Amino acid sequence: MGMTLEKLSASIGAQILGNGKMQIAGCAGLEEAGPDEVSFVANPKYIRKLQDTKAGAVILSAHYVKTTQKRPLLVADDPYFAFRQAMVTLHGFRQHPQPDISDKALIHPTATLGKDCCIHPMVFVAASARIADRCVVYPNSYIGTNVTIGDDCVIYPNVAVYDGCVLGNRVTLHAGSVVGQDGLGYATHGGVHHKIPQVGNVVIEDDVEIGANCAIDRATVGSTLIGKGTKLSDLITIGHGTRIGPHNMIVAQVGIAGSVQTGAYVSIAGQAGIAGHLKIGDQAQVAAKSGVISDVPDKMQVGGQPSLPLTQAKRNYLAQAKMPQLLQQFKQLQKRVAELESQVEMAKSVIPDTDQ
Amino acid sequence: MGMTLEKLSASIGAQILGNGKMQIAGCAGLEEAGPDEVSFVANPKYIRKLQDTKAGAVILSAHYVKTTQKRPLLVADDPYFAFRQAMVTLHGFRQHPQPDISDKALIHPTATLGKDCCIHPMVFVAASARIADRCVVYPNSYIGTNVTIGDDCVIYPNVAVYDGCVLGNRVTLHAGSVVGQDGLGYATHGGVHHKIPQVGNVVIEDDVEIGANCAIDRATVGSTLIGKGTKLSDLITIGHGTRIGPHNMIVAQVGIAGSVQTGAYVSIAGQAGIAGHLKIGDQAQVAAKSGVISDVPDKMQVGGQPSLPLTQAKRNYLAQAKMPQLLQQFKQLQKRVAELESQVEMAKSVIPDTDQ
Amino acid sequence: MGMTLEKLSASIGAQILGNGKMQIAGCAGLEEAGPDEVSFVANPKYIRKLQDTKAGAVILSAHYVKTTQKRPLLVADDPYFAFRQAMVTLHGFRQHPQPDISDKALIHPTATLGKDCCIHPMVFVAASARIADRCVVYPNSYIGTNVTIGDDCVIYPNVAVYDGCVLGNRVTLHAGSVVGQDGLGYATHGGVHHKIPQVGNVVIEDDVEIGANCAIDRATVGSTLIGKGTKLSDLITIGHGTRIGPHNMIVAQVGIAGSVQTGAYVSIAGQAGIAGHLKIGDQAQVAAKSGVISDVPDKMQVGGQPSLPLTQAKRNYLAQAKMPQLLQQFKQLQKRVAELESQVEMAKSVIPDTDQ
Repeated sequence: MGMTLEKLSASIGAQILGNGKMQIAGCAGLEEAGPDEVSFVANPKYIRKLQDTKAGAVILSAHYVKTTQKRPLLVADDPYFAFRQAMVTLHGFRQHPQPDISDKALIHPTATLGKDCCIHPMVFVAASARIADRCVVYPNSYIGTNVTIGDDCVIYPNVAVYDGCVLGNRVTLHAGSVVGQDGLGYATHGGVHHKIPQVGNVVIEDDVEIGANCAIDRATVGSTLIGKGTKLSDLITIGHGTRIGPHNMIVAQVGIAGSVQTGAYVSIAGQAGIAGHLKIGDQAQVAAKSGVISDVPDKMQVGGQPSLPLTQAKRNYLAQAKMPQLLQQFKQLQKRVAELESQVEMAKSVIPDTDQ
Repeated sequence: MGMTLEKLSASIGAQILGNGKMQIAGCAGLEEAGPDEVSFVANPKYIRKLQDTKAGAVILSAHYVKTTQKRPLLVADDPYFAFRQAMVTLHGFRQHPQPDISDKALIHPTATLGKDCCIHPMVFVAASARIADRCVVYPNSYIGTNVTIGDDCVIYPNVAVYDGCVLGNRVTLHAGSVVGQDGLGYATHGGVHHKIPQVGNVVIEDDVEIGANCAIDRATVGSTLIGKGTKLSDLITIGHGTRIGPHNMIVAQVGIAGSVQTGAYVSIAGQAGIAGHLKIGDQAQVAAKSGVISDVPDKMQVGGQPSLPLTQAKRNYLAQAKMPQLLQQFKQLQKRVAELESQVEMAKSVIPDTDQ
Repeated sequence: MGMTLEKLSASIGAQILGNGKMQIAGCAGLEEAGPDEVSFVANPKYIRKLQDTKAGAVILSAHYVKTTQKRPLLVADDPYFAFRQAMVTLHGFRQHPQPDISDKALIHPTATLGKDCCIHPMVFVAASARIADRCVVYPNSYIGTNVTIGDDCVIYPNVAVYDGCVLGNRVTLHAGSVVGQDGLGYATHGGVHHKIPQVGNVVIEDDVEIGANCAIDRATVGSTLIGKGTKLSDLITIGHGTRIGPHNMIVAQVGIAGSVQTGAYVSIAGQAGIAGHLKIGDQAQVAAKSGVISDVPDKMQVGGQPSLPLTQAKRNYLAQAKMPQLLQQFKQLQKRVAELESQVEMAKSVIPDTDQ
C-alpha cells in the first residue's frame, strides 16, 4: 500500500521539502530504512544519524531542516507523532478475523455477547459474563463469571480474566496476562498464614493496553483500578487495591505493591518497584530500577534504591564513584595533620607560653 | 449476608464496646468503609486514620481503645486476624462450580480422578496423572504425564504442570503459573551450550498458594521443593533444585536461583533476588530489591545490593547521602591543612631549631 | 537404565581410576548422590565437598585427582560436560508422545504441517502457518497467522506465537511464553498515547531454548531477533527491535529494552536490565541485578546500578562500606585541624613577623 511522498505528507499533516513524486513503500528506523522508505528524527541525540541513513525521506522538525540536504524532508511540529501517522497510513494495524462465534468456544447460556464479536475456538466464557460489541477474543482465553467487557476490546490468547472484573471500551490484553487473581493477603496467626478472602475486583478503564504475561491483583475489597488511556508493557504486576491513574506509561517488569495511588501521566521505567500505600503525583517520573519507598510529589523525577529526587540520586552516584580515591586522600591528609601536630608540639616547646 | 455487630463479634472472638445491635453489611479499609461496614487497625502507623474513617465499627487491640470514642469497637488480641475472620464470616471465599467432569476436558484413559472433582472443559490431563478428591481445575490448564495432585487443590486457568510433578493437599495455583519446566541447565563445550536433561521434578507441599504467572523450575535430579504453608505472589521464579522451607512468604517478582535452601517462616520482599547455592535461615527477612549473595543466618534481616545486615545497609545508605557534602568539606580541609603547612614552614624558619 | 562405571566412562570419554565394575544407576549432585550414583566437581569451590559425598563415583579433572582416594573417579578434561554426557547416557531427555495430529486440534485448512508432527488437542494453528517436520506442540498453544516453524521444535502448553513470527529448527518454547506481542510503542500527542502499529515480527534462530512465561516483543518494523544457540531462562522480556546475538545465556527475570544489540556469547545474570539502543559486545558479562545504561565493550564484565566495569563497581562498593566510619574520622580530623589553626594563630602572635 505504497503512495507518493506528496500524498503521505498530506495525510499526516506535514510540510514537504523536496521531490514529492517519489514513491514511499513503508516506514523504518534511520539505520534500517531503504530508499523507498520514510524515517524520522524526534530525539536530537539521533540527528547525527541523518548523515548515514539510506532513507528515501525523513520526518523531522523545522529546527533541524538545515542539517540535511540530501533527501526530501517532511517537516512536522511533532515528528514522532507524524511518524506514527505514517505508520498507520502505510502499514495500518493488525487485522483481526471476521466476526464469528466459534461453535468450539464454550459460552455459558447466561453469558451475553454484543454484535459483531469474534470469539475464537476454545475460549471459555463463564456464567453471567457480558461482552459488548465488536470484541475479539483469541483462543484459549478465559472470561470468568460475571465479568463485564465493553466495546471493541481485543483479548489475545491464553488470557485469564477472573470473576467479577470489568473492562471498559477499547481495552487490549496481550497474551498470557492475568486480571483479577487473588493478591498476597494473609493474616499470620498461630504460625499459619490464614488466607483473607479477596472479594474485590479489577476495573480497567477505556483505552488501556496491557502487555504480555502481566498480573493484576483483584482488590481485597473494592477495586484495583487501571485508569483510562494507561499503557502497560510486559511482565508487570499491580498489587491489590492499587489505583493507577489515567494515561500512565509503565515499562516492563515494573512491580507496584498494594494500595498505591498514581496520578495522571505518571511514567514508570523498567524494573522499578513501588512499595505499598504510597501516592505518586501527577506527571511524576520514576527511573528504571528505582525502589520507591516514599510518596512522590507531582512532576518530580525520582531514581535510585531507595529512591531520591533524581538530581540528588545522580549527585550521590557521582560522589560515590569518588569514594575509593577519597579514602586514599583522606589517609594522606591524616598523615599531614599528624605531622603538623608534631611540628606544632615541638614548636610550642621553644615558644614562650603567652598564657602564663 | 449482613449480621448484627453483636453476632459478628461473637463469631470472630472479639469483645464488643458500644452498640451491638447495629447491622454490619461487610468489611472495608479505614478510608473506604461506610457506616454499615467494619474496618480495622493493626498497624500503629494508621491509628491517626481513626479520626476520619466513616466505618460503622472498627476492630482494634485493647491498647488503642481510648483513642476513639465515636463508634462501636471490637477489641481483639490480634486485630488483623480478627478482621480476616470477619472477612470470612461476612464475605466468604470464592465459590467454585459444582463438581463435574466436563466431556470437553481431555482426560487420558490411564489418568485417575478422585471423587467430587470439577474438571472444566479444555483441561488436558495426561497419561497416568492422578488427581485426588474435590479438586477444581479451570479451563485450558495442562496436567502432565504422571503428575500427582492431592485433595482440595484449585488450579486456575492456563496453568501448566509438567510431567512427574507432585502437589500436596489444598494447593492453589493461580492463572498462568508454570510448575516443572526445565531450568537453565547447559554445559558449554566447544562453543555450544549443551542441554543437560532435567530429570527431577517439583514437589509442592500442603497448603501452598502460588500467584499468577510464576515459574517453578524442576530439579536437574531430585526435587525442587516448596514447603508446606508457603505463599508466593505473582511473577516469581524459583530455580532448579531449590528447596523453599515451610511457611515462607514470598512477594511478587522475587527471583530465587537454583540450589538455594530457605528455612521456616522466611519472608522475601518484592523484586529481591537470591543467588544460587545459598542458605537462608529460619525467620530471616530479605528486604525488597535486595541482591543476596551470601548465606543469611536465622532471624537476620538483610537488605541492599549486594545485601548486608539491614542496619548496616541503612547506615551505609545514610552515609552515602552525605558524600557530596563530604567531598566539598574535604577539599576545604585540604586547603586549610596546606595553609597550616605553609604557616608552620614559615614559622620554622624563624624558630630556633632545637634539634641542632 | 543403569550400567557399569566402565561402560559409562567409555560412553562419556572419561578415564577411569578405580573399580570399573561397579553398577551406576544415575547422576546426582555431591550432596544428594548415593553409592550407586555418579556425581561431579567442576567448580574448585566445591572440592571440599568431596570429603562428605556418598557418591559411588565422581567425575573431575586430572588436577584434583589426588584430593580424593575414597572412590572410583572418572577423569575428564571438562568435568561438567562429562557429567552432562552422563546425564544424557543414564537419564536421557524427556520423551514426547508419538507423532499424531489430534482431531481436537484446530488447524486452519491453509496451514501446513510437515511429517511426523505431534499436535496435541486444543492447539490452534491459524491461517497460512507452516510447521515443518517432527515438531511437538502441546495443548492450548496458539500458532498465529503466517507463523513459520522449522524442524524438531517443541512448544510446551499455553504458548502464544503471534502472527508472522519465525522459528528456526530445534527451537524450544516452554509453557506460557509469548512471542511477538506488540511492544510499548506510542506517540504521545495532545495528552493521548497514540498506538504505533507494530508491524515487524520476531525471528528465533536455530537451537534456541526459551523458559517459562517469557515475553518477546515483535519489532515495530523489521525483526526482533534471538540468535542461534541462545538460551533464555524464565520471566524474561526482550523489547521491540532488539537483536540478541548467538549463544547468549540469559538468566531469569532479565529485562532488555528495545533496539539493543548483543554480540556472541554474552551472558546476562538474573534480574539485570539493559536500557534501550545499547550495544553489548561479544563475550561481555553482565552481573545479576545490573542496570546497564551505556554500551559494553567486548569481553567486559559490568555490574552495579547504573553499571560500571565490575572491578570498579566492586571497589566502589567496598569504599561505600567504609563511609560511616570515614564520616566520623573526618569530623575528628576537622577538630584536629581547627585546634592546629588556633595554636598556630596563637603562635603567630608571639613570633616575630618575618614578612615585615
